[in-house]
Amino acid sequence: MIPSDTIVALATPSGAGAIAVIRVSGKEAITISSSIFKSVHGKDLTKQKSHTILLGHILDDKRTLDEVLLSIFKGPNSYTGENVIEISCHGSPYIQQQIIQLFLRKGCRMANAGEFTLRAFLNGKLDLSQAEAVADLIASENEATHQIAMQQMRGGFSNEIKLLREELLNFASLIELELDFAEEDVEFADRAKFKELLNRIQEVLKRLIDSFAVGNVIKSGIPVAIVGEPNVGKSTLLNAFLNEERAIVSEIAGTTRDAIEDELTIGGIGFRFIDTAGIRDTEDVVENIGIKKTFEKITQAQVVLFIHSAEEFQNAEINLKSLQLEVGKIASKHPDKPLVIIVNKIDILSEQEKHRLEELLSKIEGSSYKLISAKTGVGVEAVKNLLLNFVNTGALRNNETIVTNTRHYDALLKALEEVLKVQFGLDNSISGDLLAIDIKQALYHFGEITGEITSDDLLGNIFANFCIGK
Amino acid sequence: MIPSDTIVALATPSGAGAIAVIRVSGKEAITISSSIFKSVHGKDLTKQKSHTILLGHILDDKRTLDEVLLSIFKGPNSYTGENVIEISCHGSPYIQQQIIQLFLRKGCRMANAGEFTLRAFLNGKLDLSQAEAVADLIASENEATHQIAMQQMRGGFSNEIKLLREELLNFASLIELELDFAEEDVEFADRAKFKELLNRIQEVLKRLIDSFAVGNVIKSGIPVAIVGEPNVGKSTLLNAFLNEERAIVSEIAGTTRDAIEDELTIGGIGFRFIDTAGIRDTEDVVENIGIKKTFEKITQAQVVLFIHSAEEFQNAEINLKSLQLEVGKIASKHPDKPLVIIVNKIDILSEQEKHRLEELLSKIEGSSYKLISAKTGVGVEAVKNLLLNFVNTGALRNNETIVTNTRHYDALLKALEEVLKVQFGLDNSISGDLLAIDIKQALYHFGEITGEITSDDLLGNIFANFCIGK
Repeated sequence: MIPSDTIVALATPSGAGAIAVIRVSGKEAITISSSIFKSVHGKDLTKQKSHTILLGHILDDKRTLDEVLLSIFKGPNSYTGENVIEISCHGSPYIQQQIIQLFLRKGCRMANAGEFTLRAFLNGKLDLSQAEAVADLIASENEATHQIAMQQMRGGFSNEIKLLREELLNFASLIELELDFAEEDVEFADRAKFKELLNRIQEVLKRLIDSFAVGNVIKSGIPVAIVGEPNVGKSTLLNAFLNEERAIVSEIAGTTRDAIEDELTIGGIGFRFIDTAGIRDTEDVVENIGIKKTFEKITQAQVVLFIHSAEEFQNAEINLKSLQLEVGKIASKHPDKPLVIIVNKIDILSEQEKHRLEELLSKIEGSSYKLISAKTGVGVEAVKNLLLNFVNTGALRNNETIVTNTRHYDALLKALEEVLKVQFGLDNSISGDLLAIDIKQALYHFGEITGEITSDDLLGNIFANFCIGK
Repeated sequence: MIPSDTIVALATPSGAGAIAVIRVSGKEAITISSSIFKSVHGKDLTKQKSHTILLGHILDDKRTLDEVLLSIFKGPNSYTGENVIEISCHGSPYIQQQIIQLFLRKGCRMANAGEFTLRAFLNGKLDLSQAEAVADLIASENEATHQIAMQQMRGGFSNEIKLLREELLNFASLIELELDFAEEDVEFADRAKFKELLNRIQEVLKRLIDSFAVGNVIKSGIPVAIVGEPNVGKSTLLNAFLNEERAIVSEIAGTTRDAIEDELTIGGIGFRFIDTAGIRDTEDVVENIGIKKTFEKITQAQVVLFIHSAEEFQNAEINLKSLQLEVGKIASKHPDKPLVIIVNKIDILSEQEKHRLEELLSKIEGSSYKLISAKTGVGVEAVKNLLLNFVNTGALRNNETIVTNTRHYDALLKALEEVLKVQFGLDNSISGDLLAIDIKQALYHFGEITGEITSDDLLGNIFANFCIGK
């Protein structure tokens, strides 16, 4: 299964930069490199220690391709576990290409996406969930996704699974042993202790499965629907969050007919803001389609920000009734979804008007409220904090393991199912051979997560999503 | 003049990739790094040898930012000549930012464009023309620009200048000495030898100055005007060169009204193809503006490809006359510019027709010709070879020093001017003190090239064109 050829790829982003790094891994990495590298100080590349760096030139026959720094890593003390050479060259795309092509001519093969990390996995440097975390780490865009990926890469998740798997494996072998001595009716596996283990496993699995709800939204960004009529300042609020003009702020009412999505990081957490066309009753066909879309977007969202303009509250009581009605429309369809009424443009209100508005808003059921001015920034920070409070970041703060990967989630669900079967079997004193089958199934799903059980298809799917050079 | 602070920057292209490299240089590079780095094997960063690599974690207080490889270079054996740390981290832009921000909080300063190379120059690791070559090397896009930059970076150019400067300096000091003994009327400087040196210097300077004509076009790409009526297959020819559909190939005559530029590499040399609207007589105002532009573009070009379609030669003799006329129009304005008539779409001609066409084309004065089919590829290679023959690549092939930098060209011209003055002075036996002034001026211009004489303004201008991190 472990490949014997030597692979090469650009490891740094493509394009021109100060430097670029070309990575070579495999049995022949050092010998091939030594055939095209000449040390400035006449040192023999093949005789250097691991984790050392040589200055020299890459030579294509007599032509000097570049002056480079060459780093030597000897297997198993390398990223892949194989011999690895990293060449730090000048960051010209032409030079990068020339050096890679030279390695290809000397017998290397172009690395596939994720192949360096695949080799690290195959050589036992990382388990499968750690390898997957490498891709997550590279894709991480904020503190939350970074923290989760880093914890997974450092083995927090798989260690927990591995320990449980070992304990379960231990019981499995005792039960198998009982089967060998079936006629003698002995019990090697202490049933009380086994039940205690099953309880512990269930607890851990349930915690991990529950964490996926948080982990998944953190990974893809927490969806927040911004509902409101045209011209109430939705785009201006987004811009206030973004601190830059990323949405088009228009003075013409009704310009935001399509939902626009904007991603940004607040307090280290990624949010996806879904701008909608509002839910105002209208006879305009296009606007009515917009309202239908708005309700679809609310369904996808975790939190709804219902935005109004202070201008609407000139005749406060009349508009408050229609507001109550609209809040009712949303709340009846989505009773459990947090709904926040945001009154924008409060800079146009007097202190007295503000006070009166707050009094009235506090009476509306099924929602909370905030008074802001997206234009001047008043109250924007409060809305940000409110959003952060809606996110269950307890697990994140306590540095608990959070599952973000659908593959892990599926395996955990299946493992739990099998563990419940085992427990049911134990409670109902079913025969040891049937028990053994369910335990094996549970072990199988544990093994899927850490990669003790894999298939070429599975590995192919996982590493195809990596970038080349990793 | 040598700065004492420690600088940090991303050295690899921005964006996500498998890995990114962050470079730190300055007195405190190692101590600052050791305060945020924890080796996996418990090694003390400050006690490591130069040119070694440690695996470990970057820690922001208790938070792990990344698992990284850290390379140690101790001054003066580093790129800048100072202590240098290079951190190879996971290529997430978030992680890159976090690590750089951590270094900034620990007392580093964000590096300016080219500041690492500026420090290498200030610390005597590179002379100024070598430092300039680093930027050229990173920008090199083909074999020719790469070869010229590499030769300059390895000191080919500045060594030649430095040797001449030393010899000239030697004579200058002898002449100064004579001035001290002016009353005794002695000649320390052998006038015959001095004249011989001045001749040699002139030869070298003239050769270098001449090389700029080649070097400059190689650096910016050799301009080739593609002249022809609409629908003769100009875009198809460009595409045949490019081997990909980069220009829009249209069947509608007259669609190419604006000049489109396309750069591509042929035989390691960069060419800039300038597509024009042709020079057909017309009453259309827009087309007439196009013809005026065509002649402007021909003025800029080094070679003119005058493209016709074989379809025009159905009634061969009539069209040949108009062709002769058009060639005459170009040749009269640009008598020394190589002009090649290219007849495209010859796949529609019989062998007999081709033969007759060649016979007729060979009679047209002031041009050569090629029969091609851009669609099938017939003759395209021959046109490529023809283009390469127009370029004076002798100097390139012989690996001679080629000047590509306008700053060097200017300094060489000025140096030559002063050397000619010195020679004139010698020939006319002017007094030693006047001679000494001209020699000093010549030495000054030599020194400008290698950086023995610089100003902050000059350095600022040069390094501002570098990328950050180099």
